[in-house]
Amino acid sequence: MHTGSTPAALRQRIRDGEHDGNTSGQAAGFVQCNIVILPQTWAHDFLRFCQANPKPCPLLAVSEQPGDPGLPRLGGIDIRTDVPRYRVFRDGLLQGECTDLHAVWQQDLVTFALGCSFSFEEALIADGLEVRNISEGVNVPMYRSNLPCIAAGPFSGNMVVSMRPMRAADAIRAIQICTRFPAVHGAPVHLGDPNLIGITDINQPDYGDAVTIADGELPVFWACGVTPQVAMEHAKPPLAITHSPGCMLVTDLRNSQLAIF
Amino acid sequence: MHTGSTPAALRQRIRDGEHDGNTSGQAAGFVQCNIVILPQTWAHDFLRFCQANPKPCPLLAVSEQPGDPGLPRLGGIDIRTDVPRYRVFRDGLLQGECTDLHAVWQQDLVTFALGCSFSFEEALIADGLEVRNISEGVNVPMYRSNLPCIAAGPFSGNMVVSMRPMRAADAIRAIQICTRFPAVHGAPVHLGDPNLIGITDINQPDYGDAVTIADGELPVFWACGVTPQVAMEHAKPPLAITHSPGCMLVTDLRNSQLAIF
Repeated sequence: MHTGSTPAALRQRIRDGEHDGNTSGQAAGFVQCNIVILPQTWAHDFLRFCQANPKPCPLLAVSEQPGDPGLPRLGGIDIRTDVPRYRVFRDGLLQGECTDLHAVWQQDLVTFALGCSFSFEEALIADGLEVRNISEGVNVPMYRSNLPCIAAGPFSGNMVVSMRPMRAADAIRAIQICTRFPAVHGAPVHLGDPNLIGITDINQPDYGDAVTIADGELPVFWACGVTPQVAMEHAKPPLAITHSPGCMLVTDLRNSQLAIF
Repeated sequence: MHTGSTPAALRQRIRDGEHDGNTSGQAAGFVQCNIVILPQTWAHDFLRFCQANPKPCPLLAVSEQPGDPGLPRLGGIDIRTDVPRYRVFRDGLLQGECTDLHAVWQQDLVTFALGCSFSFEEALIADGLEVRNISEGVNVPMYRSNLPCIAAGPFSGNMVVSMRPMRAADAIRAIQICTRFPAVHGAPVHLGDPNLIGITDINQPDYGDAVTIADGELPVFWACGVTPQVAMEHAKPPLAITHSPGCMLVTDLRNSQLAIF
């Protein structure tokens, strides 16, 4: 059934240039992915980086061959056209955004699809929990923590974390829910005092928007898919392509299929 | 194999009067239980109280018939002799302790065996976490919270909670581990600011001993098996018998058998 709400129909609209923005709330129930595309000579080390740091970099799929734009485990995908908006980095620096990769595609490029917080936010909301960035209609606040990733070749750096404030009982429930979903960042990595993970001002996120933290709430921190961008700042590959924040690859996998129990 | 370390051998020593104290650390790997014994006319409401409040009152077994001292699901048990030390309450007030119930046994008594924190503490330590009350060699600190239990007939009151301080990452791991064991209090009920659950001085527990809370640690609170004693203070049954704190019923169930996944 190809209605506007299926992943395949949404990807077709993106491919046709009819949707080039945020995918939050689109194709509800289906997994959306962070995307990293690198030349083959850099791909093995990045794959090792993901393997060593599964909480910030939960790898869901990798190209079967360099230059192959398909990701068949995730659906009928052409990665050159099916993400609404891309970012192109050269030597670790952002060069610009585009909505189609044909002009920059190379036959040595390898695509990595990583799980994203949209999946666990859906599970939290389905359980009756409030996700503050959604209820306030802003991007989730993200921070550069002092929690080190395990380095792999040129890829290294500290973990970027996203934050959602919750009362303690809700935080405990959120830990239970997210534990079921290791492929989309899994359980939180910290809660409580932000200073303990190197965050000096909770109201000044490094990415995204600040959200209200009410009296009696704890900030709860999850490993974040922006972490690979920090690793690429360190590695400075000659070419790297990512999705633009919030403009994700929509897949045919259901969020519930990622639950491990 | 009836060595000193099996539950059956330990119960025999208790039955023979050779062990009348704390069972902490005895028969490692096996479930120990909180015990509540009530007249039949009070038993149905207490059973409903446990059903409605499974976190403080996780019921593992109930007498098959009033007056029957056996709990066959838990092993070859005579509840009149197999707990090291009992407390006898009349009209809600503690009358004294004893090591054998033959003098007070009645044919209308119903026994309830409830899960105990020793099981989840063992699972936490097996995972490499520190349990402060164990490393400091004291009883766990326990507090009367302002979290209300659901009343059942005459049984009511607030939840008693036990507290173990942990760093946030360890608290998250502890929540994951304890979630696997709903029959021994399950996941914590609160963490962070004690005032939010009505605890005004964390260094003055209502039961047990204070423990050190280091910089950067959060107090983590679990529902506690002392809660039924508070409910009995409210209900004031003419006769009630419990184990003496720390002097538990040792069963043939393995802690691992209580894991739900």
